[in-house]
Amino acid sequence: MVVATQSLEELCINSIRFLAVDAINKSNSGHPGLPMGAAPMGFVLWDKFMRYNPKNPQWFNRDRFVLSAGHGSMLQYALLYLMGYDSVSIEDIKQFRQWGAKTPGHPENFETPGVEVTTGPLGQGIANGVGLALAEAHLAATYNKPDATIVDHYTYVILGDGCNMEGISGEAASIAGHWGLGKLIALYDDNHISIDGSTDVAFTEDVSKRFESYGWHVLHVKDGNTDLAAIAKAIEEAKAVTDKPTMIKVTTTIGYGSPNKADTAGVHGAALGAEETALTRESLGWSYGPFEVPDDVLKHTRKAVERGASYEAEWNQAFAQYKAKYAAEAAEFERLLSGKLPDGWDQVLPTYTPEDKALPTRKHSENCLNKLAAVLPELIGGSADLTHSNLTEIKSSGDFQKGHYENRNIHFGVREHAMGAICNGMALHKSGLIPYGATFLIFTDYMRAAIRLSALSEAGSIWVMTHDSIGQGEDGPTHQPIETIASLRAIPNLTVIRPADGTETSGAYKVAIENSKANKPSLLAFTRQNVPNLAGASIEGVSKGAYVLVDSQGTPDLILIGTGSEVSLCVAAAEKLTAEGKKVRVVSMPSWDLFEAQTADYKESVLPKAVTKRLSVEAACSFGWHKYVGTEGDTVSIDTFGASAPGGTCMEKFGFTVDNVLAKAKALLG
Amino acid sequence: MVVATQSLEELCINSIRFLAVDAINKSNSGHPGLPMGAAPMGFVLWDKFMRYNPKNPQWFNRDRFVLSAGHGSMLQYALLYLMGYDSVSIEDIKQFRQWGAKTPGHPENFETPGVEVTTGPLGQGIANGVGLALAEAHLAATYNKPDATIVDHYTYVILGDGCNMEGISGEAASIAGHWGLGKLIALYDDNHISIDGSTDVAFTEDVSKRFESYGWHVLHVKDGNTDLAAIAKAIEEAKAVTDKPTMIKVTTTIGYGSPNKADTAGVHGAALGAEETALTRESLGWSYGPFEVPDDVLKHTRKAVERGASYEAEWNQAFAQYKAKYAAEAAEFERLLSGKLPDGWDQVLPTYTPEDKALPTRKHSENCLNKLAAVLPELIGGSADLTHSNLTEIKSSGDFQKGHYENRNIHFGVREHAMGAICNGMALHKSGLIPYGATFLIFTDYMRAAIRLSALSEAGSIWVMTHDSIGQGEDGPTHQPIETIASLRAIPNLTVIRPADGTETSGAYKVAIENSKANKPSLLAFTRQNVPNLAGASIEGVSKGAYVLVDSQGTPDLILIGTGSEVSLCVAAAEKLTAEGKKVRVVSMPSWDLFEAQTADYKESVLPKAVTKRLSVEAACSFGWHKYVGTEGDTVSIDTFGASAPGGTCMEKFGFTVDNVLAKAKALLG
Repeated sequence: MVVATQSLEELCINSIRFLAVDAINKSNSGHPGLPMGAAPMGFVLWDKFMRYNPKNPQWFNRDRFVLSAGHGSMLQYALLYLMGYDSVSIEDIKQFRQWGAKTPGHPENFETPGVEVTTGPLGQGIANGVGLALAEAHLAATYNKPDATIVDHYTYVILGDGCNMEGISGEAASIAGHWGLGKLIALYDDNHISIDGSTDVAFTEDVSKRFESYGWHVLHVKDGNTDLAAIAKAIEEAKAVTDKPTMIKVTTTIGYGSPNKADTAGVHGAALGAEETALTRESLGWSYGPFEVPDDVLKHTRKAVERGASYEAEWNQAFAQYKAKYAAEAAEFERLLSGKLPDGWDQVLPTYTPEDKALPTRKHSENCLNKLAAVLPELIGGSADLTHSNLTEIKSSGDFQKGHYENRNIHFGVREHAMGAICNGMALHKSGLIPYGATFLIFTDYMRAAIRLSALSEAGSIWVMTHDSIGQGEDGPTHQPIETIASLRAIPNLTVIRPADGTETSGAYKVAIENSKANKPSLLAFTRQNVPNLAGASIEGVSKGAYVLVDSQGTPDLILIGTGSEVSLCVAAAEKLTAEGKKVRVVSMPSWDLFEAQTADYKESVLPKAVTKRLSVEAACSFGWHKYVGTEGDTVSIDTFGASAPGGTCMEKFGFTVDNVLAKAKALLG
Repeated sequence: MVVATQSLEELCINSIRFLAVDAINKSNSGHPGLPMGAAPMGFVLWDKFMRYNPKNPQWFNRDRFVLSAGHGSMLQYALLYLMGYDSVSIEDIKQFRQWGAKTPGHPENFETPGVEVTTGPLGQGIANGVGLALAEAHLAATYNKPDATIVDHYTYVILGDGCNMEGISGEAASIAGHWGLGKLIALYDDNHISIDGSTDVAFTEDVSKRFESYGWHVLHVKDGNTDLAAIAKAIEEAKAVTDKPTMIKVTTTIGYGSPNKADTAGVHGAALGAEETALTRESLGWSYGPFEVPDDVLKHTRKAVERGASYEAEWNQAFAQYKAKYAAEAAEFERLLSGKLPDGWDQVLPTYTPEDKALPTRKHSENCLNKLAAVLPELIGGSADLTHSNLTEIKSSGDFQKGHYENRNIHFGVREHAMGAICNGMALHKSGLIPYGATFLIFTDYMRAAIRLSALSEAGSIWVMTHDSIGQGEDGPTHQPIETIASLRAIPNLTVIRPADGTETSGAYKVAIENSKANKPSLLAFTRQNVPNLAGASIEGVSKGAYVLVDSQGTPDLILIGTGSEVSLCVAAAEKLTAEGKKVRVVSMPSWDLFEAQTADYKESVLPKAVTKRLSVEAACSFGWHKYVGTEGDTVSIDTFGASAPGGTCMEKFGFTVDNVLAKAKALLG
């Protein structure tokens, strides 16, 4: 028996390797190479360093683990299974990548307890990791006391060459270095192979030097395949440096153990196959059958269950002591963890009347954020270098910076994509934080992958997007959204709201905050320019997505449907048409998806099928509007790129005027 | 007169500064700080180093200039005016950022001759610059001869802190370093101020060290405000290093010369105002009035016109000699520059019958690319590390690598965003190259800003996107497009095509190649999985966007509208319905925007208004389809995220089956 010559640690590591190989062979789909090479670092991390409780994966003070190289998902599933999580059984592993299994192709937090974030799109995970570490740093600075520590955990990330090629990882690493997040430890699986073959074909930079340039503490484990002591030593050294994040470059061999495929792209994204698997078993001295894990291994790895229970018990005790001394802080902290909002929180949201001053909705947004910040200490966020354009500063707080982690204003720099993933990481820290990230609406294009992942992975991020149309003005077509709002409305599970005035802005925030606590992201689109406050605008109306703002006597001849800054054009046009004896209804429609969620009766009451003369008015493309205006309706819209000129000029030249709305309305009325 | 104490060079530089200050004051909108600080480097570059012909801005062998920090557009407009371009007059400068002016808020190549690419969205310009330098390297390696050089120019980029914070710039710099593009010279305007204030708030990395880690040659000019000799010396040193791109960090003061606003964010994005402008004039010893440029300055700078004419004349002579010796190469090169396609090029595109083997459209795409590559030497591109999944390799060529710039297969690495901007740069080199970039369709989210800019800036890039639906399968919802195709269709000026089979794939390439020569981008969406070849599919049909594939006898009771892999479901369902005595038409609709461009008569002939029972079938979200199915129609679509399972299982579970199409069709027929 060759097995007898293996140490217990080697048995554990080979168990991980062959669970991956066997599962991927069975499904004939997946990426065995990474788990085979990264099994040692994964094992050392989960066996020797990480604190977690397998029987309570959501225990608050656990270390967070992110597999940024998400295609290596079998590494994580093998670890979850070995360490005793209930979420992944051996049957689940046998069902790898099959319909309904808890072991999808890439790690998905919403499918598999023990998975913290959803990875696969490369680079997202390391940026989520920055968000997780930021959340820890912020909560620690906010709630820990000199004599009582209740927030204290590490965030570990395994990332690969692919992650390191993506721009988002560079953005995230740069800002993490700036912040000096000492409890962030990234293990870079340096296996020199990506899908196209050797990284020599496209990736020859000095990654370690680059991380040093960001201000990271950088280490190198030269033999990540077998030198477990070196991996452990590096992690210890990483933990010893508390004022910088650490990147440990761990040089490994992809597909380690496979005689013919190791160190080739052939083992990156395809099953080993029966023959090569047999050779690999021989080469690694592994006599166990498919999906077989030696008893000694499980006996050892499942100690994590007991260990985890004691970690949690210790923490519970620490928290009880904290609570005895710091009742108010403990109550607030418990509320955060509960996911609940404080009673009456939404009473701070203002409403307006037409007599109130016309302001840009971004200004109303600033007001809402500041009023909410006073009652919701969990509100934390900032802008990608447009703080004073987006108007996202919480004036009662300072800047989140190294040494000032208790502050709530985050300067993300001009790094929209990392901002998105960092916010998602904060949300998925599951500690009750409500993160928000802001930029110009057009630059959602830079962070779209992170916005999509907020929707997919059920992260309650709030996206605060200003300068939401050609009303942006002089910056010109590169900065003016046209198709942007449509492209965002199309994303499943994302609530998009474009409020018309001050009251509707309050309504938008009411939905967004509640959504966040329900693990759902929201995207709010605000104007750069002034908009009047409208009679009839309501917070409740926003929650329904669309509502009748101005109605006619009896069945309308025509329905004008507006959103955001164009609702006031509809109101003005309706007044004129009514004066001319027409029966015109105005529907304010800040959110399509909230409207779609209403009952059929409600929808019919707002947009009766019988009224087919409908005109939408929105300073954006017509794409999608035919669902609401129908085949007999029309749109006031812009289906070309914008232009550089003052915002009012753009609006006028592109037809967003009362006269043009009137003209199109009259054409419909015949 | 203080002016008397200024050197001619200082007069020139201050002319740039005050043209910017005055224009921005007049429009009360813009970014004066960057032009004020970067005027010396801009001047040195355009006066001493750059080769161009102001009277023929499109002269082929000009040096390319990119203002990646596009908000400093007045720097470029001032230079164009001073150097004698016809595109920017003093009147244009007075109309800065006004409707219809040639001086929009950010540089736009399609508005202003002399501007090479459209910048503003930060980081795009430096990545475009990599594409411009790649184009030069490729053409030089392809057409230059040991005794005859016809391609030989530099690409200069000015970028700022914002560009350097964006992930896309890191991606582009990494691959440029890998390729060793020695004629790419980037001047980094290190002014330590971004919109949120000092870069200390979010950007404290060591940029120079980072560029060194990418393999760049890095220099530093410590006083970019006044030390013109140091700037010139650095550029000379940059040119002397031919195997690496050079980054020159030029430390400047934003708003140089403004006593109260220099070195503050106050001068980043707002006009100086009358008072501070007066103080700045005083401080810089500038006694000229608004928009006034000293005669000596113009006399000097306009020497560029004569210089440019002689550059072009020399090149014409060199080209004439080349042509005499290398007639075939010269003819091909001239055809490239002419923007024309060779006669009969499209005859290589294959068509298929139902008897031909079912293949994935990505496989047909590979075949088209290879057939086209044989007749179109200008076809050049590659994948973001998915070459053998996207199937984008040109088999008759090798890899584009350092020392092998003549090759046409580009390995972009896992850098989708930079790939997009690099392709745009190649297209906007305006030398006839047809660049293509490939990844999974879902990862257009990573490069959306570049795709949008291809459409806005009229870059003829071809986006080859595979794995175009939940048919992607096991990788799961992070990799499965749902809303993606809709979000792309919404972009103005982008042709999106999702072909149904082999013949339609040929049709897609025919459009994409012709589009490219007409400066229009196309995005092609291909399947991972097999699709049958359809009777009636046609190349001409694709060019019309939608066409009748299967028709009924007489007016149809129902129209089934399919795209891509779902057209065959429509055909199968129509057969069954016809057998049951229903009159059913099948419309294949590979491209919405091509269809929209047809005459009203044609559109009516395909989708007659009178036929209101319509069912769309597409393995994507329903968003937008109501325009074609109307209020009485329905969709077979997926409006949730996908799942990890084999592709066929996903298709079946989410209802993309003949049975489900039949059921929905029958429900419509009543």
